[in-house]
Amino acid sequence: MAAPGPVHEALAALPLVDHHCHGAVTADLSAGEFESLITEGEAWPGVSAFDSPAGVAVRRHCAPLLDLPRHAPPAEYVARRAELGWQEVNRRFLTAAGAEVFCLDTGYAPHPVTSPAHLAAAAGATACEVVRLEQIAESVAERGVEAGEYAAVFRAAAEEAVRRPGVVAVKSVAAYRTGFALAPGRPTDAEVTRAARRWQARGGRLTDPVLVRHLLWTAVDLGLPLQLHTGFGDADLRLHRADPALLTDWLHRTAGTVPVLLLHCWPYHRQAAYLSAVFEQVYLDVGLALHYTGPARCRAVLEEALEITPFRKLLYSSDAYGVAEFHHLGALCFRQGLADLLQDRVDADELSLADALRIAAWTGRDNARRLYGPPVSEPAREPCGRPARKV
Amino acid sequence: MAAPGPVHEALAALPLVDHHCHGAVTADLSAGEFESLITEGEAWPGVSAFDSPAGVAVRRHCAPLLDLPRHAPPAEYVARRAELGWQEVNRRFLTAAGAEVFCLDTGYAPHPVTSPAHLAAAAGATACEVVRLEQIAESVAERGVEAGEYAAVFRAAAEEAVRRPGVVAVKSVAAYRTGFALAPGRPTDAEVTRAARRWQARGGRLTDPVLVRHLLWTAVDLGLPLQLHTGFGDADLRLHRADPALLTDWLHRTAGTVPVLLLHCWPYHRQAAYLSAVFEQVYLDVGLALHYTGPARCRAVLEEALEITPFRKLLYSSDAYGVAEFHHLGALCFRQGLADLLQDRVDADELSLADALRIAAWTGRDNARRLYGPPVSEPAREPCGRPARKV
Amino acid sequence: MAAPGPVHEALAALPLVDHHCHGAVTADLSAGEFESLITEGEAWPGVSAFDSPAGVAVRRHCAPLLDLPRHAPPAEYVARRAELGWQEVNRRFLTAAGAEVFCLDTGYAPHPVTSPAHLAAAAGATACEVVRLEQIAESVAERGVEAGEYAAVFRAAAEEAVRRPGVVAVKSVAAYRTGFALAPGRPTDAEVTRAARRWQARGGRLTDPVLVRHLLWTAVDLGLPLQLHTGFGDADLRLHRADPALLTDWLHRTAGTVPVLLLHCWPYHRQAAYLSAVFEQVYLDVGLALHYTGPARCRAVLEEALEITPFRKLLYSSDAYGVAEFHHLGALCFRQGLADLLQDRVDADELSLADALRIAAWTGRDNARRLYGPPVSEPAREPCGRPARKV
Repeated sequence: MAAPGPVHEALAALPLVDHHCHGAVTADLSAGEFESLITEGEAWPGVSAFDSPAGVAVRRHCAPLLDLPRHAPPAEYVARRAELGWQEVNRRFLTAAGAEVFCLDTGYAPHPVTSPAHLAAAAGATACEVVRLEQIAESVAERGVEAGEYAAVFRAAAEEAVRRPGVVAVKSVAAYRTGFALAPGRPTDAEVTRAARRWQARGGRLTDPVLVRHLLWTAVDLGLPLQLHTGFGDADLRLHRADPALLTDWLHRTAGTVPVLLLHCWPYHRQAAYLSAVFEQVYLDVGLALHYTGPARCRAVLEEALEITPFRKLLYSSDAYGVAEFHHLGALCFRQGLADLLQDRVDADELSLADALRIAAWTGRDNARRLYGPPVSEPAREPCGRPARKV
Repeated sequence: MAAPGPVHEALAALPLVDHHCHGAVTADLSAGEFESLITEGEAWPGVSAFDSPAGVAVRRHCAPLLDLPRHAPPAEYVARRAELGWQEVNRRFLTAAGAEVFCLDTGYAPHPVTSPAHLAAAAGATACEVVRLEQIAESVAERGVEAGEYAAVFRAAAEEAVRRPGVVAVKSVAAYRTGFALAPGRPTDAEVTRAARRWQARGGRLTDPVLVRHLLWTAVDLGLPLQLHTGFGDADLRLHRADPALLTDWLHRTAGTVPVLLLHCWPYHRQAAYLSAVFEQVYLDVGLALHYTGPARCRAVLEEALEITPFRKLLYSSDAYGVAEFHHLGALCFRQGLADLLQDRVDADELSLADALRIAAWTGRDNARRLYGPPVSEPAREPCGRPARKV
Repeated sequence: MAAPGPVHEALAALPLVDHHCHGAVTADLSAGEFESLITEGEAWPGVSAFDSPAGVAVRRHCAPLLDLPRHAPPAEYVARRAELGWQEVNRRFLTAAGAEVFCLDTGYAPHPVTSPAHLAAAAGATACEVVRLEQIAESVAERGVEAGEYAAVFRAAAEEAVRRPGVVAVKSVAAYRTGFALAPGRPTDAEVTRAARRWQARGGRLTDPVLVRHLLWTAVDLGLPLQLHTGFGDADLRLHRADPALLTDWLHRTAGTVPVLLLHCWPYHRQAAYLSAVFEQVYLDVGLALHYTGPARCRAVLEEALEITPFRKLLYSSDAYGVAEFHHLGALCFRQGLADLLQDRVDADELSLADALRIAAWTGRDNARRLYGPPVSEPAREPCGRPARKV
């Protein structure tokens, strides 16, 4: 580990923009419920989710915020958490994260979770919204629509959703539904109608490749930055189909339109870095991997992600969902990992201190501000600003 | 490298379970024969297999056990080895490995190698057997069988094989034969019959995709833990088709049945880690890579493998074949790499010492015991115990 | 970073063979032109190419050679560069590289660049030539040829090209044109004729899979070492199709013919290492990644590339194109990264000093000499020697 230096101080003081996360649960959690929220797997009999890098990180770095000793036993941790109550727990971790803005994907909430406004209030920060397009499409389908009208109705619903105050981006989970080995072109109206008819007959989630392609092209039309889940996630994935390199043909066709933010990326963060280095519109983060790998490895992941990535192209996200511990841990891991790697380079005279401080501020906050626009001045009161500029 | 500490001491004293390895050659070896056994390639004119990370590790860490100085020249090494004779060489390295149990894949033996009983005797340990299913299938085909009877005869032969005392698991080398980009479902009887007929006509090894799928589903029926070669191996592979992520659909369909142990995995160990984090039945090791990358890199490989892997999911194997040096080097690399990474985390207060010791014991021994059952009390006398529980 | 030791001294003094690079621009460059040459992307409005790992490395390690302070601001850097003039800039960086031989791919030159002879003169070194086969094929097509004559005319043109004095190897950019997921066999004459006819009708670059396969097999017939671009490059790639593991079937069929040099490889350098470990004819380098990742990460990339690679199989290349800074940075990164990793192993007594020095000399120079033949005695006067032996 690097000896702490001025880069550590600067990153400790920097208000982050967490450009992709989710709400925190608004309920007290049993031990089993808590464990099921700190794994991308499930709670398995005889195997505690605490026995993982994320579990170790929670006991080390979150226990002290609940007034417990470092490395507190799991049972004490969950008992103390319940004792404090979810509001206090959320408040402690969300404020500790030290973010000025949280951009919340509001389209995934199998548990009752904080709305953007509630999370903002608990954190003393601003919250923006990211609209998940698959949820819009599935709502349209659930309400019932003529196959021939699907494209227009979905588009209108998406346009309406992104007009909501505070919406700064859209998101797709195409990685989960079909993966990225899709034909890159925009499907024709006739193809979309036929696919919508198939979907009507079959029901369920949006998994049709034609409709997933149509969704991605509709995102381009909306004009907002597009966040794409890539890489690591839960068992619903086929990981190899979530390699962002598979998007290359589509990125060529959509060059000059909307910014594309490759979320998370691990273990394909080098592939994402390549895309960010050769496509003007491509950005990346290593969220999710930060708290799941924990402080012991997030420097290594950041080092790999930054090998060739232009410094304007890396953003910070936690991808925290459910437990506010992860909003805190993501920020902590990002700050510590990035500070260690930059400070070491400064100490070895491979990087000037001024450059290191600039890179820290860019990746932790300014690259996101540049893409999504600055937050409004009064935290937790007003919606986020609209993007200041199209990139 | 980490300063040696209590984790190093604990791992040095821990009797390992080497949950996947092979026999050691029962013959004295010429220089050329020895070199051909310390590479996954072949002996090439003008290129010594000693000029590799594994060769350097042999000269550094194995030479002293043959009473030679560290970094002894190759010619001296092979001469001294011949002088001592294969029995003494095997005895020295196998006991130095410090394993309480070796699980031997007995289905690959192009050279005369130790049986489980002989290896156990030489090591002063217990040896269990892992049944390679492709060998069973190919024996059935060689003996001659009606295509319509193939499925039943293969299954009966496999059931008989796993009833042998000391058998704790089955193994498939599907990675070598077809790779994992297979249809995930169980083939129908008619499909199997047609495929068996094709195989009869063609002869040779089992490479038919339908029959490989059938073999994997037969493994599920057998009820024992299933070891799958993944990643790195010899030139017979198509490495990209041995990426374990390609197994995802099949893992969904076989959830709740047998434990699946992803062997070796490098360079797809992060993909394997993902699977172990989201599928209850999935486990992994980084055998083979340990002695081939050598002590200089096995910490790095273990760090990557452990980034998100639950601590109940990593096992130790050497995958040693042929030269007992590799049974020793695998153990040495595992102990040193794991101790370095855990001790560093303890020293940085990222992990408690108690947790580090628990993780060391789990990954080196207890996770394997949990899956395969405890060894019997008298080393080298009795077969291994049956699995204590279905996981 | 390792404490400097005898391995650092040895590598600092070693005349390298840069077995794959391109010419340096023979014109003074505006700030925009310079920036566009230090990225694999393009010059993007509002995003300076200096804000990248390569840009940081240029300011740190190249500025002093232009009499500027370390970490000089970009504007000062490009102003000083223009002030000195391209001849002086090229001379300084090319001599600083400390190479005895540069092997130049002369088939890619969208800018006016140094010929091998000019580069050799500026560097005080020898320059050899690598013939890019796609350029030969496209010249043949541009001149016009009967489809049925294409194979013979292309072959004759390639044979003529490799007879030029100083040609030591051929190269293919199949990775860019089709990727490596090609049928492995040699196409028939009829297939080639049909494909040539399609190409005549369509025009443009050589992208037909049959003709790319034919080109690779023609390379085999030529008998010279074959360099293959793999992995990282510009936006023209589909990165996942440039994974060298996809070449496995073709490597089996061409075993025993020409040496195959996998260029660059990142992020598939572990896959390339596997191929080099199991195929006698396969070699690799991590050029391009050296200067693009910069000194902060090239040790890490080299560590991964060397995990299982036989020490006879790694070569040095810069893959520098356009700016002579990259001929220098590649050499600097290679020397520093390799010396750090080898010296650390010597200091930890994992490697003898004699072995470390041998590995340094092999990878930096002798492996290339062995493949391409020794340079002639008078630098910059005479063409390179022919390969001393077929490997």
